Amino acid sequence: MNKRLLSLGLALVLGASYSLTAFAQAKPETLVKQRQSAMTLQGKYFGPLNGMAQGKVPYDANIVARNAGFLDALSKMPWDGFNPSTKDEKSAALPAVYTDTAKFKEAQEKLQGEIGKLVAVSKGGDEAAVKAQIGATNKACGGCHETFREKR
Amino acid sequence: MNKRLLSLGLALVLGASYSLTAFAQAKPETLVKQRQSAMTLQGKYFGPLNGMAQGKVPYDANIVARNAGFLDALSKMPWDGFNPSTKDEKSAALPAVYTDTAKFKEAQEKLQGEIGKLVAVSKGGDEAAVKAQIGATNKACGGCHETFREKR
Repeated sequence: MNKRLLSLGLALVLGASYSLTAFAQAKPETLVKQRQSAMTLQGKYFGPLNGMAQGKVPYDANIVARNAGFLDALSKMPWDGFNPSTKDEKSAALPAVYTDTAKFKEAQEKLQGEIGKLVAVSKGGDEAAVKAQIGATNKACGGCHETFREKR
Repeated sequence: MNKRLLSLGLALVLGASYSLTAFAQAKPETLVKQRQSAMTLQGKYFGPLNGMAQGKVPYDANIVARNAGFLDALSKMPWDGFNPSTKDEKSAALPAVYTDTAKFKEAQEKLQGEIGKLVAVSKGGDEAAVKAQIGATNKACGGCHETFREKR
């Protein structure tokens, strides 16, 4: 049984219909391109918020709320792209992504949790609280990159 | 007055604070990468829906609703990447993007409108209506590509 069939079997066992659909259709290089796209856009919409929290960009509550909403969607998008079929593709993902899957999943959930809090707090109008939550979100990004992404 | 200053002046006149922030920070090649990332992810989440509408992928109302929500966010993300500063960057964007800006804007709004309808109809449980709206959305994608993207 080759690796492709093995992976397909695993996907069936997991019963993840969408992942299966995606897996059945998407080539490893497509999965990498898609997950990198999600990371690029997380950078696009988180970068300015980080700048605001650090006082480098003027604070704008409307932009924070809009970007937080975008990040809420984007932070759900990269993860199915880290399919085992992609582990030999060129990318900054470290092998731990595919070996320490529990910790990787935990890091994803940590990020999604912090972004969920950012969405909530960005609706409240408390600038200090928003900035603190941007910091917490930044830490969740960095915590995952520390373990699962090549140093750059 | 060089082109950069002229563009900065225009951004100030337009009063688009986020665009200004983005413009002040993002290099043309970054803007292209970001807008292509948004297009890639629109493809990732629209592709399976198109497959469902065409009967090539099993219909799954939950995936349609989830993807429609993602597309609602994603369809707002590419457009500020088509900044005039990017017009000499390598990409599939045709010159009309920068010359026929009114029609380009109209095409963006058409897409967002169709996706808004898809979000609404995907909550209703009427499979035929959902599939028809996926078709309308596909037409909006294609209509814009027809005029503003190189043939591939």
